[in-house]
Amino acid sequence: MGIVETKLAELGITLPTPAAPVANYVPFALAGKLLVISGQVCFGPDGKLSDAHKGKVGAAVTPEAGKEAAKLCAINVLAQAKAALGDLDRIQRCVRLGGFISADPGFTGVPGVMNGASDLIVAVLGERGRHARTTVGVAALPMDCAVEVEAMFEVA
Amino acid sequence: MGIVETKLAELGITLPTPAAPVANYVPFALAGKLLVISGQVCFGPDGKLSDAHKGKVGAAVTPEAGKEAAKLCAINVLAQAKAALGDLDRIQRCVRLGGFISADPGFTGVPGVMNGASDLIVAVLGERGRHARTTVGVAALPMDCAVEVEAMFEVA
Amino acid sequence: MGIVETKLAELGITLPTPAAPVANYVPFALAGKLLVISGQVCFGPDGKLSDAHKGKVGAAVTPEAGKEAAKLCAINVLAQAKAALGDLDRIQRCVRLGGFISADPGFTGVPGVMNGASDLIVAVLGERGRHARTTVGVAALPMDCAVEVEAMFEVA
Repeated sequence: MGIVETKLAELGITLPTPAAPVANYVPFALAGKLLVISGQVCFGPDGKLSDAHKGKVGAAVTPEAGKEAAKLCAINVLAQAKAALGDLDRIQRCVRLGGFISADPGFTGVPGVMNGASDLIVAVLGERGRHARTTVGVAALPMDCAVEVEAMFEVA
Repeated sequence: MGIVETKLAELGITLPTPAAPVANYVPFALAGKLLVISGQVCFGPDGKLSDAHKGKVGAAVTPEAGKEAAKLCAINVLAQAKAALGDLDRIQRCVRLGGFISADPGFTGVPGVMNGASDLIVAVLGERGRHARTTVGVAALPMDCAVEVEAMFEVA
Repeated sequence: MGIVETKLAELGITLPTPAAPVANYVPFALAGKLLVISGQVCFGPDGKLSDAHKGKVGAAVTPEAGKEAAKLCAINVLAQAKAALGDLDRIQRCVRLGGFISADPGFTGVPGVMNGASDLIVAVLGERGRHARTTVGVAALPMDCAVEVEAMFEVA
């Protein structure tokens, strides 16, 4: 078991079967040393969307539940990275996370929600997990998910 | 006529004159082998915004019209790629599409709308068109367009 | 003093101390020749958010104030680039700006707002500042900021 997978095990995280794209696209694309992961929504380990992670943060979804949803997105990002690379130790760097929070127009705490994803990536990848990030609150996400996260990695 | 242009002709698609940026930026930028295309809105082949593609999907714009708008965005992306590359056969891969759907806050079918863009890219580029993708619903787009699509290609 | 810093001085712009990320991420990441800058909000040179740049453009924030906010975001992007590179003359090209405007759902003038950022980048970097760009109006931004701008540069 590699370094990253060992860390995942230590953290008690089992990567789910990566979600199939819901349409005519692919979950990841490799361009040279850049691995681009499609936006991942907050499906749980069972591949289902929990009611707690459905709706807008600041309205039906609490900031705490939103943060948990962002963590699930990041786990799903890693599941796709594993499908792409075979071995997660090929990740040299998480270059960027893009965080999209389905937000009530009056909710301004989107960074705190996105921390659920950032914290997970840093917990799992350590120094290699230190990423640039953009977080915005959006009007609507696929299937009324509370959070969607996309990623770019540099890989060996 | 190249492979990609032949396919466009088979599909009955004529690339429009690429739209000039509405401000102080450029429609594309090449960095090494990565071609980045600015967000393209859903102008038709005549360079105009149809009333059917103006407004929010889930409100004034039907999902079907939104999907058609996304297709127009993708055609405009290809028109910019041709302006950038001269020969569309230089495209090795569509790495990523970013889809922004002007969405009523209650509309959750944004992936279905974005399929209009993804389907077009795969229809034209085949295996080389298989892209990673992120789709979100946003509060407002330029000129009240229903859809905006940006792209990253790997090129030879 | 380098070419870019000289230009900044001519324009009367002092780069602020770059803002520390508000969470578990970093303000920039370098992947090969690509420098990715995290989304920067419209803090002023004093590191504070002016009331004029707080809220939604088209509602509490005028388009003119929004454009000024976008300019501040671009200045903050350059401050991060300087922190990343040491010497801003290492910038070969601003490849892409991503502009997120906190927008009233009825506001369609987001490109004009984002021009505040594009104009600044071109004024400072000249030909090397000519960038691809995507601008969208979003439902909510961190700390109720009116504008957030992310960037990708090609560097030497």
